[in-house]
Amino acid sequence: MLKTPEQYVESLRKFTPVVYMKGEQVASVPDETMFEPGINAVSVTYEFALLPEYAETMTAVSHVTGRKVNRLLHINTSQNDLLKKLEMTRLLCRETGCAQRYLCHDALNALYENTHNTDPKYGKDYHLKFLNYLEYVQDEDLTTCVAMTDAKGDRTRRPHEQHDPDLYLRIVDRNDRGIVVRGIKAIVTGAPYTHEIIVLPTRNMTEDDADYAVSFAIPIDTEGVEMVSRQAGRPGESGAPLTSRYGQATAQILFDDVFVPWDRVFLAGEWDFAGTLTESFATHHRLSCIGARAGLGDMLIGASVSLAEANGLDPQKTGHVRDKIADLIKFVESFYACGVTSTVFGSETRAGNFIPDPVYSNIGKLLQGTHIYDMFRIVHDTSGGILVASPYPEDMESPDVGERLNRYLQAREDIPADYRVSVARLLEDITASYQGGWYSVISISGGGSPEATRLEIMRKYDIDERKTLAEKISGA
Amino acid sequence: MLKTPEQYVESLRKFTPVVYMKGEQVASVPDETMFEPGINAVSVTYEFALLPEYAETMTAVSHVTGRKVNRLLHINTSQNDLLKKLEMTRLLCRETGCAQRYLCHDALNALYENTHNTDPKYGKDYHLKFLNYLEYVQDEDLTTCVAMTDAKGDRTRRPHEQHDPDLYLRIVDRNDRGIVVRGIKAIVTGAPYTHEIIVLPTRNMTEDDADYAVSFAIPIDTEGVEMVSRQAGRPGESGAPLTSRYGQATAQILFDDVFVPWDRVFLAGEWDFAGTLTESFATHHRLSCIGARAGLGDMLIGASVSLAEANGLDPQKTGHVRDKIADLIKFVESFYACGVTSTVFGSETRAGNFIPDPVYSNIGKLLQGTHIYDMFRIVHDTSGGILVASPYPEDMESPDVGERLNRYLQAREDIPADYRVSVARLLEDITASYQGGWYSVISISGGGSPEATRLEIMRKYDIDERKTLAEKISGA
Amino acid sequence: MLKTPEQYVESLRKFTPVVYMKGEQVASVPDETMFEPGINAVSVTYEFALLPEYAETMTAVSHVTGRKVNRLLHINTSQNDLLKKLEMTRLLCRETGCAQRYLCHDALNALYENTHNTDPKYGKDYHLKFLNYLEYVQDEDLTTCVAMTDAKGDRTRRPHEQHDPDLYLRIVDRNDRGIVVRGIKAIVTGAPYTHEIIVLPTRNMTEDDADYAVSFAIPIDTEGVEMVSRQAGRPGESGAPLTSRYGQATAQILFDDVFVPWDRVFLAGEWDFAGTLTESFATHHRLSCIGARAGLGDMLIGASVSLAEANGLDPQKTGHVRDKIADLIKFVESFYACGVTSTVFGSETRAGNFIPDPVYSNIGKLLQGTHIYDMFRIVHDTSGGILVASPYPEDMESPDVGERLNRYLQAREDIPADYRVSVARLLEDITASYQGGWYSVISISGGGSPEATRLEIMRKYDIDERKTLAEKISGA
Amino acid sequence: MLKTPEQYVESLRKFTPVVYMKGEQVASVPDETMFEPGINAVSVTYEFALLPEYAETMTAVSHVTGRKVNRLLHINTSQNDLLKKLEMTRLLCRETGCAQRYLCHDALNALYENTHNTDPKYGKDYHLKFLNYLEYVQDEDLTTCVAMTDAKGDRTRRPHEQHDPDLYLRIVDRNDRGIVVRGIKAIVTGAPYTHEIIVLPTRNMTEDDADYAVSFAIPIDTEGVEMVSRQAGRPGESGAPLTSRYGQATAQILFDDVFVPWDRVFLAGEWDFAGTLTESFATHHRLSCIGARAGLGDMLIGASVSLAEANGLDPQKTGHVRDKIADLIKFVESFYACGVTSTVFGSETRAGNFIPDPVYSNIGKLLQGTHIYDMFRIVHDTSGGILVASPYPEDMESPDVGERLNRYLQAREDIPADYRVSVARLLEDITASYQGGWYSVISISGGGSPEATRLEIMRKYDIDERKTLAEKISGA
Repeated sequence: MLKTPEQYVESLRKFTPVVYMKGEQVASVPDETMFEPGINAVSVTYEFALLPEYAETMTAVSHVTGRKVNRLLHINTSQNDLLKKLEMTRLLCRETGCAQRYLCHDALNALYENTHNTDPKYGKDYHLKFLNYLEYVQDEDLTTCVAMTDAKGDRTRRPHEQHDPDLYLRIVDRNDRGIVVRGIKAIVTGAPYTHEIIVLPTRNMTEDDADYAVSFAIPIDTEGVEMVSRQAGRPGESGAPLTSRYGQATAQILFDDVFVPWDRVFLAGEWDFAGTLTESFATHHRLSCIGARAGLGDMLIGASVSLAEANGLDPQKTGHVRDKIADLIKFVESFYACGVTSTVFGSETRAGNFIPDPVYSNIGKLLQGTHIYDMFRIVHDTSGGILVASPYPEDMESPDVGERLNRYLQAREDIPADYRVSVARLLEDITASYQGGWYSVISISGGGSPEATRLEIMRKYDIDERKTLAEKISGA
Repeated sequence: MLKTPEQYVESLRKFTPVVYMKGEQVASVPDETMFEPGINAVSVTYEFALLPEYAETMTAVSHVTGRKVNRLLHINTSQNDLLKKLEMTRLLCRETGCAQRYLCHDALNALYENTHNTDPKYGKDYHLKFLNYLEYVQDEDLTTCVAMTDAKGDRTRRPHEQHDPDLYLRIVDRNDRGIVVRGIKAIVTGAPYTHEIIVLPTRNMTEDDADYAVSFAIPIDTEGVEMVSRQAGRPGESGAPLTSRYGQATAQILFDDVFVPWDRVFLAGEWDFAGTLTESFATHHRLSCIGARAGLGDMLIGASVSLAEANGLDPQKTGHVRDKIADLIKFVESFYACGVTSTVFGSETRAGNFIPDPVYSNIGKLLQGTHIYDMFRIVHDTSGGILVASPYPEDMESPDVGERLNRYLQAREDIPADYRVSVARLLEDITASYQGGWYSVISISGGGSPEATRLEIMRKYDIDERKTLAEKISGA
Repeated sequence: MLKTPEQYVESLRKFTPVVYMKGEQVASVPDETMFEPGINAVSVTYEFALLPEYAETMTAVSHVTGRKVNRLLHINTSQNDLLKKLEMTRLLCRETGCAQRYLCHDALNALYENTHNTDPKYGKDYHLKFLNYLEYVQDEDLTTCVAMTDAKGDRTRRPHEQHDPDLYLRIVDRNDRGIVVRGIKAIVTGAPYTHEIIVLPTRNMTEDDADYAVSFAIPIDTEGVEMVSRQAGRPGESGAPLTSRYGQATAQILFDDVFVPWDRVFLAGEWDFAGTLTESFATHHRLSCIGARAGLGDMLIGASVSLAEANGLDPQKTGHVRDKIADLIKFVESFYACGVTSTVFGSETRAGNFIPDPVYSNIGKLLQGTHIYDMFRIVHDTSGGILVASPYPEDMESPDVGERLNRYLQAREDIPADYRVSVARLLEDITASYQGGWYSVISISGGGSPEATRLEIMRKYDIDERKTLAEKISGA
Repeated sequence: MLKTPEQYVESLRKFTPVVYMKGEQVASVPDETMFEPGINAVSVTYEFALLPEYAETMTAVSHVTGRKVNRLLHINTSQNDLLKKLEMTRLLCRETGCAQRYLCHDALNALYENTHNTDPKYGKDYHLKFLNYLEYVQDEDLTTCVAMTDAKGDRTRRPHEQHDPDLYLRIVDRNDRGIVVRGIKAIVTGAPYTHEIIVLPTRNMTEDDADYAVSFAIPIDTEGVEMVSRQAGRPGESGAPLTSRYGQATAQILFDDVFVPWDRVFLAGEWDFAGTLTESFATHHRLSCIGARAGLGDMLIGASVSLAEANGLDPQKTGHVRDKIADLIKFVESFYACGVTSTVFGSETRAGNFIPDPVYSNIGKLLQGTHIYDMFRIVHDTSGGILVASPYPEDMESPDVGERLNRYLQAREDIPADYRVSVARLLEDITASYQGGWYSVISISGGGSPEATRLEIMRKYDIDERKTLAEKISGA
């Protein structure tokens, strides 16, 4: 059953995760100011699912239970599901910057496919266990974080070749009841304020890496699990119109010989299915990244236009502004178009769910990750120095200088300074604060670096078909 | 009824157009060697329509006659028609470089919509006349060229402001039977070896420009029509594997007081429908440009891979080659994705036919036109100097030096020099000959310059929606 | 006489500027923690001038007094002076990020030239007064801020056309003793912790704007002057290795009918010399921007290499990292090369001082301002998520989790986690914190926007010479 | 003594090289129409050296003979020599497109340095022999081609690892009188119409490759030498204003057991000096490439401006044209600035001659080779379809249609069609004909591919210095 935002927040109280931040243990996650923007952002995924106008986008009927579920927990059963998921991601992120919860969707879909494929070869029942887990997550309308990125150690070595055997999370023991895992998962978005941790492998493995081929799901307050988190957004900061309300925490999760019962284990040593799981998740998730950043793009486009107008420049008539805004739109909508196309050419997996076309989702991710810098460039170019030089909000309201600042900072006669400065502050908040830094770094490295996407494009593109064509034409 | 390629060539003999080339009048178009590659390329559009494996892509059922027609003459009646048309364009152009005939499709669809919209306001029956004309073209399986680009004169002045009144094609007389037009249409692709000329206005007009708001269709050998054409491709040239077989002529068409009967007139003075006609054609045509250049992209990708391999470099393993080929794919498929997305979000016009989404088709065109240079850069970068320095074919076969050249120009042990040089020659042919120049210039300027597409993106994008979003978030 | 850093700080105590920050008046600038990084950065300009190894770069012999002065206060008397000044700027900024004080140099040189040229036409003695002022500044080894950017109001209107007459700083009264000015100057770098304010016009003027054509110098605590400042850097923040030590405050300066005596006035109504002053300053200053950002580039290159190595990747052997670092160097050194070339082709002004070649300094500025985003992209691409996801310093040292974090975050066997995280933190500090935002925004908009530099390139490049060449070759 | 252009052409008659083209042996090089543009271009290097206005740029005093020589044969003895050489290259190429003869300069300077360094280690007298050869070349004012690029075979294998031992030119025999060499040198610019062939190794070698470490100079008609050449430019073509007059032949040179006497041998087995010779030549030559393409850039800038004006667009006022031309200038002058800076920071070799700074010359070459595509893009964007669609010259002059074409193709009222079309034709000639292809391919691959320049930048840049800086700042 769909939770309300309030129920989501309340449900967090049932968990007692061990979370450290800035050297202190967090007493209560739902009461921690530094996580409030993160909780707010996830809350929006609950709120929108209950709004009639977003029903088609935000919800679906589970093919497992037949019940209505938040689309973020839905297994895609058609190309249209893929497209709706993309649109949902954009919708959520144009409101929140990054709503984080699509990570659940991407992990659930990848596990659905991968457990289905692993079982026949290895004589396992991972898929059945996963379906039970899925039903639980859907019915309880949970939020899970996805712990994937290992510490990785020396980048040129495989997991089993590292100087320290725990630099990738691994199985250190297994018995009748379950497995015991040790290690760390780095860069886990939103971890503290979720219900569950889904662990996925971060790369393909060889047989020697079998102990590192592990996937499972556990409650965030499982014994032996500790988190070290950064704050979410810029809570309490004046001059942060978006990120004082919405943000994302990023955490390291330490696993100190954590026990996982078998009914929550989805991969445990079947090394040749580690890479397929990673890849399947990546393909789903790159589509999420596309939608998310398109939502951010909507903000950038809108605010750039608003600020240009407040400066007295008509974005349709001032040539160089018009051309730059058009390019900003071009960047946003061209990577979004790759996302749309990856859903149009999405296909049914052997497990029966749908997955985006990997070439187009990877190209879209590559464009998004590299062009975010061009997008910021255009925003800064059309907006100018006011982005980092406007007075602090406290000064704008100060009895000493506020009135004069408001007088002088008005540009176009019919638009007050407050409008102009507010829009500038939004742009500063999302492109020139540490959150701007976060958006750019996460855009290029989160969900797959440019190099990773190029490798995947080359692996999945039908190069031989083009080669045959060229040979035929050239007579070679 | 669908013509065979042979019937198409034969049908050209029924026309006696006045065509000049290099200072001489062409005696017979179908027998002129310099046009052979152009005729060959159009023939492929007839050939493929008869092949069972391409039936779905290349043909459709006319909603006017209920008969099977070449899709190039079809009025789109669904989003799927738009997607099929895009795929058809790519298919034809990966075979021919540029098959030219989609211009018909784009003009017919634009006229279908525009005549429908013009009639109610002006009390005309253009739409009915157009339907008759459409039926004729479909039933006879004709090829038309599209004469749109005017001489334009001073770019800062409107048609009626030019120092010479004939710098845009205009109506100089009208009577009960029809209109008389004078002027020139420049850059008419494939003109000599088509059956009909469809004339469209090249821009929006003001009331003062009413005489320049004119559209009609006439046989290419209509009295008073003369063409000055360039050759098609590189007929007879050794070392031109593609363009000695397939090419495109570009012609200037002179109209010396040409009479057009009313049943062939589709716009004549209704100045406020000149711009809509131009724009509708442009939207359809930009999608064609996307498909066409994606086809060229297929050749570039395939040949670059083949040449790298012939040089001993594995495109999957040699890092800098792999990254460059991945980027080449990225450029091609990202503009193609904009095309696909423009069909997904295509919409029904008031006239009942379907038109691609203008934002995405313009973005795709913009990317295609500007990134063709990046595509050429990558091809040249991965291929190297052999592209312009391989010996002439005659030398490779010369008894004096041929054997030694073949020995020395072999790179990888198991791939003969001939393979390597043939592929290099294909790349030279399409990127470093005058045809390479043509492809790049036509990509950036044909079907709408970057500036024109940016203007259109700004006009059609829902900027206000984004502005409202930004205002809401910023509290402005 | 050259001051020591300590003397500089002490000298600030002689001034009592009115400075507001976050709604409060600052009690004492030199004791204000929030300005400490700014004061530190300026101090380096004093410190380095006293170091023997930097003597040639950091000092010069004043052609006015014959005494040794800080090169930042020197009037360039040769091309070599220009080159030395560029090298000095890079030297200072690779230490501090941005040392701010070159603004003095650029303003002094521009005033030297412009006062010399204004006097003959208007029968003034501005140049003589300026020389007196210059001698004072040099002998006292002062630091001045440069107040140039006006509020500007509606960007499409000239100063006198604004709805509020004070949106550009203007002369509201003049008498025997001096002038009275009113308005605001925005985005004044480093203002609170300088000794003097040099005011320059921000653009060219028409005769109707004569009251806005004004330039002068006054002590920062002149009556009627109030500042509203932002903090300098990130004082007190853990995890800010550079900017907790060095930073830049940006201030708005309010002028409430401030009186300026004639011996401190360098332009007052001679409207046709407003634009030349702006332009001269811009030409000098764009060279400073080039050197400054090259210094930042040095940090980015070094830290990217260090981090790659700490990750186990050899920047010389891992292909995609090598190519990206090479491109990072390319971006930095190509704009620096434009700076060097602008000094090589620098020329003597009519006033006798030397000015960089405007075409090359503008191209260098344009490259620097737009490619800073590519530089950040490469840094983020080669560094990855650790830039925004490393644990806070307090967590790395926490007794609860510090040891484990240090164990897991070690990558290459022989490089400790602390090294890796410290370097990552530096990159976060300068590319992904609000200071990273400041660097990017200031790079593109400070010292001249891309549009401004393009305009200047077009005005100063010898286009006619190239046109004549093309006409000759083409036979046109 | 400096030859006149006529004496140069006449001197070619003293040689009887074996040259094949299009399957035929060329009867007489100086009488071969297909080589005329090449001979013309080299002639300009003789012509300009005799013009008083170019004396300083085009000539120098040989430090070997004390006699005046063409600077193209001069050993650089100062930084100023390096700068003058750069300026000379630009001067020659803005007249001819590519004057080819700087290859001599670059090879002579590299051999000067390398022979000096080889002798002490190996107890040879190469340097003395080279000085004799240098004196001969200078005194006779000869032109040499430079044969460097080997066939290379499989790109992943070293010379001695190839399946065919002759895929790199090698020494097959040596005796008291000299050496015997076999193999091919590919892509030799201008070969047929030079006096001498200077052979250089194409890469660094290992001890196993010793037989491939070979450098020497021989007359072009030495027994056993045969050339297979492409034509130079577009001789006889109407519509080729530049390249019907000036062009470059590219040849393969076959060496069939060619004997070279010891006094013409400069490297023969000293394998560890093969790479240094290659690198030294590359460093000199990359500077030449920069100057050459800056000259081409001058034509592109001038013609783009002329054409825009002829179209009625003021390049200073039409925003998007202005910005594009400014970017065109930016591309040209930024790589040129790297050239200038490489001369400013040029240094004296151990042999006593001067060499450009390798980092800046490689960056300049990298920019030039990759941005040539951006330059072409801008040219095509601002010029439009007329570049590939203007009527043939014969049609413009045809009695049938010429008058009307001239009327219609006039754009701006006061500029005749002929001017507009002539300028368009120049741009077609150098950017959209096979010569345009040649310019782009040679720009990116000639003188060092982007990958080669990136490798060299990384090898020569002081990365450790930056790393130390970053470590110091970060406290790592």
